[in-house]
Amino acid sequence: MIPPDPDYVVRVRTSFSHQQAMALLGAQMTEVQPGVTEIVLRFREELTQQPGFVHGGRITAIVASAFGYAALSLMPPDVGVLTIEFKVNLLNPAAGERFVARGQVVKPGRTIMVCRGDVVAERTDGTQQMVALMQATMMVVRDRPAVSD
Amino acid sequence: MIPPDPDYVVRVRTSFSHQQAMALLGAQMTEVQPGVTEIVLRFREELTQQPGFVHGGRITAIVASAFGYAALSLMPPDVGVLTIEFKVNLLNPAAGERFVARGQVVKPGRTIMVCRGDVVAERTDGTQQMVALMQATMMVVRDRPAVSD
Amino acid sequence: MIPPDPDYVVRVRTSFSHQQAMALLGAQMTEVQPGVTEIVLRFREELTQQPGFVHGGRITAIVASAFGYAALSLMPPDVGVLTIEFKVNLLNPAAGERFVARGQVVKPGRTIMVCRGDVVAERTDGTQQMVALMQATMMVVRDRPAVSD
Amino acid sequence: MIPPDPDYVVRVRTSFSHQQAMALLGAQMTEVQPGVTEIVLRFREELTQQPGFVHGGRITAIVASAFGYAALSLMPPDVGVLTIEFKVNLLNPAAGERFVARGQVVKPGRTIMVCRGDVVAERTDGTQQMVALMQATMMVVRDRPAVSD
Repeated sequence: MIPPDPDYVVRVRTSFSHQQAMALLGAQMTEVQPGVTEIVLRFREELTQQPGFVHGGRITAIVASAFGYAALSLMPPDVGVLTIEFKVNLLNPAAGERFVARGQVVKPGRTIMVCRGDVVAERTDGTQQMVALMQATMMVVRDRPAVSD
Repeated sequence: MIPPDPDYVVRVRTSFSHQQAMALLGAQMTEVQPGVTEIVLRFREELTQQPGFVHGGRITAIVASAFGYAALSLMPPDVGVLTIEFKVNLLNPAAGERFVARGQVVKPGRTIMVCRGDVVAERTDGTQQMVALMQATMMVVRDRPAVSD
Repeated sequence: MIPPDPDYVVRVRTSFSHQQAMALLGAQMTEVQPGVTEIVLRFREELTQQPGFVHGGRITAIVASAFGYAALSLMPPDVGVLTIEFKVNLLNPAAGERFVARGQVVKPGRTIMVCRGDVVAERTDGTQQMVALMQATMMVVRDRPAVSD
Repeated sequence: MIPPDPDYVVRVRTSFSHQQAMALLGAQMTEVQPGVTEIVLRFREELTQQPGFVHGGRITAIVASAFGYAALSLMPPDVGVLTIEFKVNLLNPAAGERFVARGQVVKPGRTIMVCRGDVVAERTDGTQQMVALMQATMMVVRDRPAVSD
């Protein structure tokens, strides 16, 4: 996919850096490609629900952000995107050192974009485990402020 | 539905009061019935994504909490619940003074519980608008710590 | 909701009667209101997957048809709808004499319609049980043939 | 993944061949691997909703069957699976000569299995297009007849 905005990386990274919710989590955007982004969250006690496990809501938040920016990376400069629905499976308790969320656009469209995402937990012993799996629908927004920007 | 734990209200309210994520949002549990809970979030600037609109992630978080506790209210004392998946539609931008999330158990089961939820925004002019609609699947957990408790 | 097409009942019923898939199942449309339809399927051996249980795919089909026509009932004469996604929970095995699917529009919109649906099994002993629960997103289609018509 | 039933291919193919719904569609199972199956549907006029487009319900049916058998391929001989919920995005109108549905297990579990699936339309001009994307939750069933078998 060729992004219609040649400055899509700057646009996506700038928007991400302004997202208070991601800043509060300490999440970092580690990759931006056309139609793909990666966001990494490091384990911190404040993010847990029970000792050792990051709250499912936080896991959901980083992957929702990842696929939202994946969609935004394919938008023309003045066009935004809005998440209209998503479905997430929480596969395993979120135990690990790092949580790597990847979002990608599966179907770019004029009005509707469909995305997939997942979150992989990386442990200190080098093992990995998928902890969340997501499928989402976004709407292209031309006439009003979009949520992801 | 008759809750098998006669102290289900205390259990649910105690667990909710320990939830750091809900406390940070300033959310309050306003109702606990067998298989039903209600959680209210008041508008604050810190919760917004864009001026005037509460972040969809926060809206999702309160309704996910509401249906999780709705399921917990029907559990025996030593049994917990775990959200295994949910789907949410974000229907309208979350503008309003108060956001009222209701969750209810549609199908209680021995292993699987299915829940519905929604969030209604209340405006200062007295109007209301549904801003989120959710359908979720929970698993009954007998042998390990459950996420909602 | 006031349907913009005064002949919405005729439009919906005519379209339904042309649906080969519903005719093959022997499904009947028993109610059309603005934003709501009801479709009834009677038990027949050919619809079963295992003795006594109607196939989940058929249950899904009738409720998908019900919410699709619920959305169509709110469209202007030349405008159609297209199901872009749905999520269904299959709550209980579909045992019964009659299966009553209801679909309703929860959020009508200019571009996106969100619907809910469910299927209730009616037994010969007079009992009822919900067997499916659905949440769906439809797109309003102005410029091409729509799936539900 | 190593299937606990060494005869998993026979079990899956035998069960599929008994599925009346798949036989009526003319669907064929073209691949069985541990945790993965592929089902192919050839275009026929009877499957269409509008001229040239296969009905979304049929597309949904073949991919639901594909991920159900993907899960079954990983079960011990006396254990079955039951689809408890799924979510499908219908990405593009189903125009093509052949529709190839693939289902795979993303997370095998003792009680819950999570699967993904998609359907790709193959055109006579050699082009391909994804027409459906699915994410599903299955329950492992030890004590009663399972739907996929």
